[in-house]
Amino acid sequence: MIAQLARMALAELIGSAFLLAAVVGSGIMGAKLSGGNEGVALLANSIATGGALMALIGSLGPVSGAHFNPAVTLFVALRERGCWNIRAPVFILAQVSGAILGVILAHAMFDSDLVQLSTHKRASRGEMIGEVVATFGLLLSIWGISRSRPEAAPATVAAYIVGAYWFTSSTSFANPAVTLARCFTDSFSGIALGSAPGFVAAQLLAVVTAVFVVRVFEVGTSDK
Amino acid sequence: MIAQLARMALAELIGSAFLLAAVVGSGIMGAKLSGGNEGVALLANSIATGGALMALIGSLGPVSGAHFNPAVTLFVALRERGCWNIRAPVFILAQVSGAILGVILAHAMFDSDLVQLSTHKRASRGEMIGEVVATFGLLLSIWGISRSRPEAAPATVAAYIVGAYWFTSSTSFANPAVTLARCFTDSFSGIALGSAPGFVAAQLLAVVTAVFVVRVFEVGTSDK
Amino acid sequence: MIAQLARMALAELIGSAFLLAAVVGSGIMGAKLSGGNEGVALLANSIATGGALMALIGSLGPVSGAHFNPAVTLFVALRERGCWNIRAPVFILAQVSGAILGVILAHAMFDSDLVQLSTHKRASRGEMIGEVVATFGLLLSIWGISRSRPEAAPATVAAYIVGAYWFTSSTSFANPAVTLARCFTDSFSGIALGSAPGFVAAQLLAVVTAVFVVRVFEVGTSDK
Amino acid sequence: MIAQLARMALAELIGSAFLLAAVVGSGIMGAKLSGGNEGVALLANSIATGGALMALIGSLGPVSGAHFNPAVTLFVALRERGCWNIRAPVFILAQVSGAILGVILAHAMFDSDLVQLSTHKRASRGEMIGEVVATFGLLLSIWGISRSRPEAAPATVAAYIVGAYWFTSSTSFANPAVTLARCFTDSFSGIALGSAPGFVAAQLLAVVTAVFVVRVFEVGTSDK
Repeated sequence: MIAQLARMALAELIGSAFLLAAVVGSGIMGAKLSGGNEGVALLANSIATGGALMALIGSLGPVSGAHFNPAVTLFVALRERGCWNIRAPVFILAQVSGAILGVILAHAMFDSDLVQLSTHKRASRGEMIGEVVATFGLLLSIWGISRSRPEAAPATVAAYIVGAYWFTSSTSFANPAVTLARCFTDSFSGIALGSAPGFVAAQLLAVVTAVFVVRVFEVGTSDK
Repeated sequence: MIAQLARMALAELIGSAFLLAAVVGSGIMGAKLSGGNEGVALLANSIATGGALMALIGSLGPVSGAHFNPAVTLFVALRERGCWNIRAPVFILAQVSGAILGVILAHAMFDSDLVQLSTHKRASRGEMIGEVVATFGLLLSIWGISRSRPEAAPATVAAYIVGAYWFTSSTSFANPAVTLARCFTDSFSGIALGSAPGFVAAQLLAVVTAVFVVRVFEVGTSDK
Repeated sequence: MIAQLARMALAELIGSAFLLAAVVGSGIMGAKLSGGNEGVALLANSIATGGALMALIGSLGPVSGAHFNPAVTLFVALRERGCWNIRAPVFILAQVSGAILGVILAHAMFDSDLVQLSTHKRASRGEMIGEVVATFGLLLSIWGISRSRPEAAPATVAAYIVGAYWFTSSTSFANPAVTLARCFTDSFSGIALGSAPGFVAAQLLAVVTAVFVVRVFEVGTSDK
Repeated sequence: MIAQLARMALAELIGSAFLLAAVVGSGIMGAKLSGGNEGVALLANSIATGGALMALIGSLGPVSGAHFNPAVTLFVALRERGCWNIRAPVFILAQVSGAILGVILAHAMFDSDLVQLSTHKRASRGEMIGEVVATFGLLLSIWGISRSRPEAAPATVAAYIVGAYWFTSSTSFANPAVTLARCFTDSFSGIALGSAPGFVAAQLLAVVTAVFVVRVFEVGTSDK
């Protein structure tokens, strides 16, 4: 029991670390190589994140479910309760620790200062709305694909994230652990510490909305 | 019965809203970041639309079939009749409403005026032909993949749309609800109100053509 | 029997037409929007071709096998004989006719002259080698995926072609029907009539080589 | 028995040759067409490598397992032993030979000198860390996807590599045979001979780490 939870936590930690190394690392590389064309940089950043995410969910999904995201863990916990009362805090701790380690790892790979503070303000009303939309869509996608074709979840979630980087004004953080960790990089993908609470609040609002909406889809369906 | 139809309509509305938020949002973001290189902007626009579409069809397909497109609903209704006499108008109303909501949502995310009017004329003969080709190919793809490997439909339709953005002169609207809704954005992906009827006519012509062509493929095949 | 062959030929014709419309159309669009950056144009061209190909093979594969390529038809005919003695010439005629129609369609979509002659010489020794490599790799991929996981063939062949656009010096025509048809467009993806015979010879050399190599892989394997 | 090993070795040789032709060829093409924008060149390089890899693993996987990588072969050999005591050296010899042939083939396709020496130094501490991360992530992905959904391995490994090109400072060689072979090209994807030992050492460190970490995931799980 405890051994299983420890294994799950390790998978969440490693997966979250890799996810952040991918987000921040490809952000640095994209900015470095794109010759000032931010469109090329964000193409690289989004495609690289999607590729890494597909591999991480595919390989670690069978171990822990491959949340790598407190919003997903909360969504699952609010719907399933039971063992999630204990699992949820362990998962979230592992995700946040892993995410911060991942940022440090990205900096180590690019010979930068290991811990930095972002100065990138992201606090417009539009970006708040963007985070609600991004997170709601992510949870809807995960819910929908997991109940009907779980084997397609890695590619589906990755495809969603590649798209959401571009169609939300916030470039789709959609993840409180990612949001917090990206405060600690002063590179392409960073977010100022002062902007983080707004993003996290928007993400949590989306969790509650998604729990409600998918319940509407499930009411009266015999297959649930 | 009515509860099920309402659930389907809700799925069509949410899916269409997300689709348009993705099309218009990634168009705005692409134009903003591409430093004037429209090729980079359209790469972003097409890849983001494909990613969102794959996730939306994968997650909402089991609820409503994930049409998000009156041309698809008409194609299905003309071939299957029966319950579609009632379903089709409900679906189309949900799709058009959702699509317009999605455009407004995109504008909200990017802090723009919520309702705008496009001035982007798209009325050349080539673009009309483009819409016939785009819509016919979409319906052929949906028909073919749904009868043989429905589980591959989300990725297949998304791949088709990414391609069709580029290989048609019209960037492949291929969807009357999308066409109407994109009249209300004065951004990269907009279309002038005056150009919309031509696009919709071309799309409807493709629906009729597709119904005829797939019938030829089905004549005498025992598997249908 | 004859009805089935006619249906197959129609599928090969429509599929080849769409494939060429995609190759030539996305080439025109890519060149038009990329602001002179040929890398961006070829990214668009390759990704669009891959997307279209995945949809075409997925939807028309169950009808005709979705060759759209005389090299593939010859490869299959040389290995399976039997009914292919009649099928092969019918397929190849349909592919060539469809391919030329597709080029005309692309020109119609982009309001260009319907029939043009390319002036784009592609005759270096490196490009000949490129066509041998491209075609051999295509046939090896089709052979390998079809015998072990045919349901993955559309995505696999599409992925191969996206890659081969870039890793061969010839941008990977790998298809005699495509080669001939692209003589009739004076746009990004054209090839001068005088360069076509060299390309086709290289492609046929690859067919013979592939027949031999896959036989080595099959000798003594009980699963074949 | 020996016939089977010879077939496997041939598949590893052909696959490794194609992989290097893809990496080096698309690097040359990307650099040539990108107008000096290295971001566009690396997008092409990474996407083309991913596409080729997906096709190669999908088609040759059933023949040899589609390692194309001594790090993967060592990882498997350290975990499974038995027949791998003989197989491993044969595989590695085939991989290295194939990889060097692939580089020569790429040069032949692009009318360059067949054998060159790279002057591209890659020796920063960050790049060493990058190779550890890249190789560890690759092995983790292969391990995870192979035990739960082997049919998804080609797309998953390809997606990982596309991402890893961008998120590691070293552009993710993650393969000793690839590292050695890329010493012999003085193009976009080359690496100076003097930098190779550091890369290979980092890759081998990752092999040992991965063997240890996946053992932790497997301890006490009944499904292994």
